[in-house]
Amino acid sequence: MDVLQRLAALRQEMREEGLAAYVVPGNDPHASEYMASHWCEMQWLSGFNGEAGTVVVTLDKAFLWTDSRYYLQAGIELKDSTIGLMRESDIDCPKLVDWLSENVHGLVGVNPEMFSVNDFADWKEKVELKSIDLIKPIWTENRPPIPQYKLYPYSADFAGETVESKLSRIRQMVSGKCQNGNYALIVSALDEIAWLLNIRGNDVEYNPVVISYVVLEADKCTLFVNPEKIDTVAQNYLDFNNIDVKPYEAVFAYIANLSGSVMYDGARVNEALFEAIPADCKKINTKSPILIDKAKKTAVELEGERIAMRQDAVALTRFFKWLEELKADGKWQTADGRLTEWDVMTKLYEFRAMGENFVEESFGTIAGYQGNGAIVHYAATADKCAEIKPEGMLLLDSGGQYLDGTTDITRTIWLGGEIPAQAKLDYTYVLKGHIALGTARFPKGTRGNQIDALAKQYMWEAGITYGHGTGHGVGHFLGCHEGPQNVRTDMNPTVLEVGHIVSDEPGIYRTGKWGIRTENLIAVIPAEQTEVTTTEDQWLTFEHLTLCFYDTSLIDMSLMTDKEIAWLNAYHARVYKETAPLLNADEAEFLARKCAAI
Amino acid sequence: MDVLQRLAALRQEMREEGLAAYVVPGNDPHASEYMASHWCEMQWLSGFNGEAGTVVVTLDKAFLWTDSRYYLQAGIELKDSTIGLMRESDIDCPKLVDWLSENVHGLVGVNPEMFSVNDFADWKEKVELKSIDLIKPIWTENRPPIPQYKLYPYSADFAGETVESKLSRIRQMVSGKCQNGNYALIVSALDEIAWLLNIRGNDVEYNPVVISYVVLEADKCTLFVNPEKIDTVAQNYLDFNNIDVKPYEAVFAYIANLSGSVMYDGARVNEALFEAIPADCKKINTKSPILIDKAKKTAVELEGERIAMRQDAVALTRFFKWLEELKADGKWQTADGRLTEWDVMTKLYEFRAMGENFVEESFGTIAGYQGNGAIVHYAATADKCAEIKPEGMLLLDSGGQYLDGTTDITRTIWLGGEIPAQAKLDYTYVLKGHIALGTARFPKGTRGNQIDALAKQYMWEAGITYGHGTGHGVGHFLGCHEGPQNVRTDMNPTVLEVGHIVSDEPGIYRTGKWGIRTENLIAVIPAEQTEVTTTEDQWLTFEHLTLCFYDTSLIDMSLMTDKEIAWLNAYHARVYKETAPLLNADEAEFLARKCAAI
Repeated sequence: MDVLQRLAALRQEMREEGLAAYVVPGNDPHASEYMASHWCEMQWLSGFNGEAGTVVVTLDKAFLWTDSRYYLQAGIELKDSTIGLMRESDIDCPKLVDWLSENVHGLVGVNPEMFSVNDFADWKEKVELKSIDLIKPIWTENRPPIPQYKLYPYSADFAGETVESKLSRIRQMVSGKCQNGNYALIVSALDEIAWLLNIRGNDVEYNPVVISYVVLEADKCTLFVNPEKIDTVAQNYLDFNNIDVKPYEAVFAYIANLSGSVMYDGARVNEALFEAIPADCKKINTKSPILIDKAKKTAVELEGERIAMRQDAVALTRFFKWLEELKADGKWQTADGRLTEWDVMTKLYEFRAMGENFVEESFGTIAGYQGNGAIVHYAATADKCAEIKPEGMLLLDSGGQYLDGTTDITRTIWLGGEIPAQAKLDYTYVLKGHIALGTARFPKGTRGNQIDALAKQYMWEAGITYGHGTGHGVGHFLGCHEGPQNVRTDMNPTVLEVGHIVSDEPGIYRTGKWGIRTENLIAVIPAEQTEVTTTEDQWLTFEHLTLCFYDTSLIDMSLMTDKEIAWLNAYHARVYKETAPLLNADEAEFLARKCAAI
Repeated sequence: MDVLQRLAALRQEMREEGLAAYVVPGNDPHASEYMASHWCEMQWLSGFNGEAGTVVVTLDKAFLWTDSRYYLQAGIELKDSTIGLMRESDIDCPKLVDWLSENVHGLVGVNPEMFSVNDFADWKEKVELKSIDLIKPIWTENRPPIPQYKLYPYSADFAGETVESKLSRIRQMVSGKCQNGNYALIVSALDEIAWLLNIRGNDVEYNPVVISYVVLEADKCTLFVNPEKIDTVAQNYLDFNNIDVKPYEAVFAYIANLSGSVMYDGARVNEALFEAIPADCKKINTKSPILIDKAKKTAVELEGERIAMRQDAVALTRFFKWLEELKADGKWQTADGRLTEWDVMTKLYEFRAMGENFVEESFGTIAGYQGNGAIVHYAATADKCAEIKPEGMLLLDSGGQYLDGTTDITRTIWLGGEIPAQAKLDYTYVLKGHIALGTARFPKGTRGNQIDALAKQYMWEAGITYGHGTGHGVGHFLGCHEGPQNVRTDMNPTVLEVGHIVSDEPGIYRTGKWGIRTENLIAVIPAEQTEVTTTEDQWLTFEHLTLCFYDTSLIDMSLMTDKEIAWLNAYHARVYKETAPLLNADEAEFLARKCAAI
């Protein structure tokens, strides 16, 4: 079946169901960032392989909405598909739901598993929706199954808290909001389930989670998961924790038998689960208490992060040493004298994989040489990657999943040749912003969007800014991106709280020239308290978790204040002190050189 | 009639109307900041004379909700009133509407003129409301009339735009949103009316506005105002501009006869006006287009502000010179050797009143000596004010209404004696924040809450912050406080736009010791554009409108960067250059000394 045949088959189904349009978003039923290929319905239907997009099919037309990252790719992949491209980053591009409401007269079919409750409700105000899965009947050949990797218990030694304790606290939060004892909380986000039950798995790339649902009630906790995922060890673990197991698909029938209050996070729980809730239940749509609780890392989780960071520091030190020593006589000392972005990604992975408790990468490494560094979501592949010369700028954004915790770091380094003055300025604006945010002290109650500008103020002075977020939340041996906390311009009402981990990653991107980004993970911690003001605020600040030197050769010292220099030297001293004991003498000598005071 | 009698009379009315409670908020029908005494129903009923509060009367109880500024005053004034005090700034104080919903079973009466449409709708979700005015029938003796000052035309030379042009633009905005030609916009905010029709008046203290309503339609514009306010000049002016005049109270009947689309800003228009709209009209609740437009000052308005600022600079220079010269041999050279906060307020008013085109003060001057400066809403009176010694700290927050524009400035000065190191630190943290915000460059699309922390970052480092906003919007010969723009922590979605004026006023307050605040008005202007980034943003920055030296004796130079010093010296040079030509030689010499480079 090719794309034209798939569209024809879909339209046949649409006619039989009396639908005027059918919408296939690039989502899965768990609101996941990284999706199993089983759920790549949008890609299968359209032939477009980008990660973000939504296909709309009417009886005589079809369009794909996607953002500017994918315009080029979509243009190529949609050729001959009869699917038009809607460039959603363009100002004059209609919003999908508005386009539907103006151009489609009749029923619009959607698979309710692929829509959050809130999105479905928003669309319903403008469009006549019908919940129906029309991909299942036509995608019958070669559809990848739902991944069936084994579930494994995640030791409370790493997790820092027993399942019993977590369940008890979440139950308290839920019952408090439901104001009666007959309640259920529906959990569909995979990282929330993994955190709540101290389980991990391999079903999803980069995220050690298990494809499943949970329904938490006052007297029981039920995990809906394919039984094949559960071996004896896992079964004993679940039994010990009084977690009932039912088949993955049984969640809908189970929810249909609930009574009392049913709580769900409409931003993450899918519409199909919602539609299964009996009409006479009291429905409570609220921000997931698990999401909120999970974000506040415990002392054990933070200590795990520090251990993971030391492993990461060793890998990065070895990698940078290897890269530096690979260069001699202005050439790479490889077999063919060549080095590519892919080679770098592979080598960095090898060093990381040597680390104790390393499980996998926490996302696909971005190795952007020169102008490629300016493409914010650049992803080189073995087939399609640039050659790196022993000169110019290399941006490297990478991270690891360790049993101890999750890492995510960006360093930008100069490979050789004379450094342009503008490159030094850019690097230093970024570094100054990175330091300003990472050393900020702020009162309790401060939101991320209030301190975002601290990271931008110096580049703003020079008329430069960047479009991506300054900081995303980070999980503990879970998603490298998690909410609700972040540091962005958006009006996120979440205040920063002790235990939150966010990234600190300002950047400057010059098309065709270079991209510069500097990123550490930082944890919110209590700051030294003061008693001299008229307010009684509690003060917070950040601990830098990431341990890796910055490329000091790129710093324009004339822009640096004494305070910034002192901070940098203290940080480098700490990097050396914490990493050197794990290195051999040669490596330690290399690191000492990189961490030398400026 | 005393308070007990008033409460008894109100309860009698409540019984007759079958009400379980009656609520009297401290509002007027125009959502004004400063109210005519005619509408001080809350104060009349309760005997409490603070500016903020709401009284709730049930058949057997009564309470006043007010904030921490007024706890002391309310405690005294409510004594023997049988009205209990609800301390609404306290964490455990119930929200008024929640208290009603839990404690009152039955109808709650409110005067719909005193509630915004949005507030009324919010309350209605929790409480059974009945629109009824029960104060009018009982407040029959000695009720001050609605002020009846004359309305006067505000020359387009000052306003910078003709009424015709304003009406045409606002009509375009309204008809665009209403999508048909049969529309009406209800305007009840007095500053919006004054701006729209280029009229001014004296009905309200500090704000040169006219108590009135406007209904703007496609083919006519009707001003609802007491006819006694309109003399021949005003009548000719209104006729010339095709503005119909009807009596103030006629607005309700007029609205009741509208058809088509009726637009109103539910945050500012009162519920009584809303209830008058015929049921078959299409009701469009939207942020006032006048509010939005008015905030973006034109070139003529900004030039007027600059003229007013020079007048203000002259007054302040003369005042500070007078104050400095009043001191000799460690004593004030007054008749009795004494000087009070009230004396200072009076003298400053005298100097301002000498200014060309001066009309009135733009708010009540705050003169806070030593610890009084730490009381954020401190207001000294002739009877109750502190004596000022020729030593220590004086905070002075004041402003003027000139035909050319509105001013608002705070300076904190050291009167004599040795300056404590902490005072210098505090002053310098405030000054550094003031400069950081006031010199910020930022991309178009930035909200005030994104740059608020720029003003706080240095004091935050020292564990100090303040509870008030950093910047409020300012009108042009109108309200000293206006929206929608501001610089606060609140999640105001308004982005800063060219022509917006905001204050830049960080502060540090040490109870019992001193308050330090430094305030300039700054206007958003285009910044030098850059073309080097990957974004295509338009860059914005601020122009300092206020022209007055800072007390450099209070600066801790060790905290100041070269950049900050350079900015300060350039600002002082500009202050001197723009003000000196308006001063006599002695005054200019004094100013030159105060503006000397540091």
